[in-house]
Amino acid sequence: MKVNCERLWATHMDAAEFTELGSPYTRRSFTPQYREMRNWLTDAFLEAGLKVKTDGAGNLHGIYSGTSDRNFVVGSHTDTVPCGGRFDGISGVLTFLEIARCMKEAGFIPCKNIVGIDFLAEEPSEFRLSCIGSRLATGNFTNEMLNLQHRESGMLLSEAIQEWGGNLSLLSPGCPLFDTATFDGFLELHIEQGPVLENENLDVGLVTGICSVTRYDFSVQGRADHAGNTPMDTRSDAVVAASKVIDAISEIAQGTLSQKTYFTATVGKVDIFPNGSNIIAERVDFTLDIRSEDNLLVQECLESIFASASAIAKLTNTTIEHIKISQGRPSISDGTLLSVLEKKAKELGLGYTKMLSGAGHDAAYMSTIMPMAMIFIPCKGGRSHSNSEYSSKHQIEKGANLLLKSLVELTS
Amino acid sequence: MKVNCERLWATHMDAAEFTELGSPYTRRSFTPQYREMRNWLTDAFLEAGLKVKTDGAGNLHGIYSGTSDRNFVVGSHTDTVPCGGRFDGISGVLTFLEIARCMKEAGFIPCKNIVGIDFLAEEPSEFRLSCIGSRLATGNFTNEMLNLQHRESGMLLSEAIQEWGGNLSLLSPGCPLFDTATFDGFLELHIEQGPVLENENLDVGLVTGICSVTRYDFSVQGRADHAGNTPMDTRSDAVVAASKVIDAISEIAQGTLSQKTYFTATVGKVDIFPNGSNIIAERVDFTLDIRSEDNLLVQECLESIFASASAIAKLTNTTIEHIKISQGRPSISDGTLLSVLEKKAKELGLGYTKMLSGAGHDAAYMSTIMPMAMIFIPCKGGRSHSNSEYSSKHQIEKGANLLLKSLVELTS
Repeated sequence: MKVNCERLWATHMDAAEFTELGSPYTRRSFTPQYREMRNWLTDAFLEAGLKVKTDGAGNLHGIYSGTSDRNFVVGSHTDTVPCGGRFDGISGVLTFLEIARCMKEAGFIPCKNIVGIDFLAEEPSEFRLSCIGSRLATGNFTNEMLNLQHRESGMLLSEAIQEWGGNLSLLSPGCPLFDTATFDGFLELHIEQGPVLENENLDVGLVTGICSVTRYDFSVQGRADHAGNTPMDTRSDAVVAASKVIDAISEIAQGTLSQKTYFTATVGKVDIFPNGSNIIAERVDFTLDIRSEDNLLVQECLESIFASASAIAKLTNTTIEHIKISQGRPSISDGTLLSVLEKKAKELGLGYTKMLSGAGHDAAYMSTIMPMAMIFIPCKGGRSHSNSEYSSKHQIEKGANLLLKSLVELTS
Repeated sequence: MKVNCERLWATHMDAAEFTELGSPYTRRSFTPQYREMRNWLTDAFLEAGLKVKTDGAGNLHGIYSGTSDRNFVVGSHTDTVPCGGRFDGISGVLTFLEIARCMKEAGFIPCKNIVGIDFLAEEPSEFRLSCIGSRLATGNFTNEMLNLQHRESGMLLSEAIQEWGGNLSLLSPGCPLFDTATFDGFLELHIEQGPVLENENLDVGLVTGICSVTRYDFSVQGRADHAGNTPMDTRSDAVVAASKVIDAISEIAQGTLSQKTYFTATVGKVDIFPNGSNIIAERVDFTLDIRSEDNLLVQECLESIFASASAIAKLTNTTIEHIKISQGRPSISDGTLLSVLEKKAKELGLGYTKMLSGAGHDAAYMSTIMPMAMIFIPCKGGRSHSNSEYSSKHQIEKGANLLLKSLVELTS
């Protein structure tokens, strides 16, 4: 069995059509574009002969039936960041679809059910939470998270889950939706979103672990005043204060680098109010995203940042608040799954390396309830979360064949 | 003659109804709310017995006829910043309306026509230009300005002027729309937008001059990358670079203060693209607004800022561009008009001071073609450009009576 490379590429291009017009490729979770994508995927799963269901967390399952009650899971997500790409997440879902089509054409009957999952809302959503579907399905959530409000509509996350086919009565913190006794493992194929594979001219990365992702929301409160008639020394300027804090975050993160551990700190979203050129800003909200293998280091860095923010608030006559939105823990891949991936990569003659993921993935949550590993495929220039994100059809094909061969071994 | 304080207050409250719903008080130029305001004002002018016309620049005139061809002008504006107040600008226009009503009721017949003007788009508009109506009417513009594009619709300013009743064929750089030989002067009543009058418990400020306003647009270009998989030292992060520049601007402006000249530098509008919490920002655009009595000092400060920006671009692996949007010159009030205002303030028993305006006003452009002076009235806490902006009905009344008495003297 081998995947049909042209068909797999064509499904990528078809799926890319589900985007917000004028901002390719934007398919934010909980939007009409996302709904259209899901409807299309449901039809494609059914046409491929899969059983389809939505779990209590709103994740869409396509099930390739085996001869026992045991299960093996693969999957990823179909939502995007604003102005994202055509491969991040969806390549893992469409590769499963292609594999199911191949298996059906080949008449392959596995011992275990192969469950392909499109996880709900993996990217940070308007509920200010990422990996919603995989968190909920694995029990890694709190009831407070269900009460998070949509930034614009004010809708509760719990209401959105119901609207997207979930079932709140099945969700309980600490309790996975999967009967873990019958689930043997999880594999996720994903683009690397970094430059390593391309730089080293490799076909795939075998992911040995995933960094923790820590997110904080900062809010800087100043006072709106007229830019002309308010002397500099009497201002409470939220833009100036926020700029100083963002600069401090960048400096602290650079300092942390010298400790030779994987570490990133990013402020990617900043909102200014009221945002007029001749009005001193009243408020600036921004998000902080920290990734590392080492949560102790994250904590030390956060403490430095909070101390800087506190000093800057005093200096600028503003108030600066920060609240933790989420803090994950680093995830370690399963040795047995990795050895199967490595064996099959060798059999296929693929160039590979073992590597760490700086990006969070649904796989991180799945690893809390079953053995997990990931396959990375290269992407051009390491670029992701941008509409220039690109993996070639043959790069996808190689990763897809590795996933196919591994699945056959793991479910035969 | 005295103004009817209750009626003047009531027209303020009526006018405040013309706002974007949900963001009081927002009446941006060139919007439907602004159109409704203008229609309401036209009707009010007509009911007050005024002749109404729109000039070539799209300014709305209400004319209280006198017995000669000579003219005296008063006026201000009716647009607001986003989430602005109920007094900035419109108090000057509604005071003229109230004065016209009083004069008509009293049967006052002036020697000169009293022309009240609602200047088009005084606040920085979506065309990234302020004082559009007064610039154009006084010939203080370039043809490039007419080609500025609306931030959202892409419409040209020249097209918008026509749509708002102007006449492009009458507009020519360097040529005022007013026959300056027959125009004797201009007075503008405005809220102070600063804390001086309130702090000193004064009724009015007699404005001796207006600071220049210099505006630049900055654009910081980085590269969008994934926040997790892009090591800190390989980034081109536009948010970090912009934060460093904004911090530098604030520090440079604070340093300039020690030279004891009125000086402010403000970054009030910042836009981040694509603005997602796990995407390194590709671009940050922001505006710089500088006010001073001393344009040489402004130039020195700009040069320091540009040098800092250039060093920061190198340090952060970004490119930083800046373009001048506008640079005005400081304006000096007319001594004769000031002496009339001072005499009338004394006759009315008002507490007053002479003061400088840090905020730009249509009066600054009018001063380039005829004698100009301004009356400031206090506003609570010096707050402006915010919906908590407030002047009491008696504060407005005192300023309005000063304007009424002065106009009577100047046009009798």
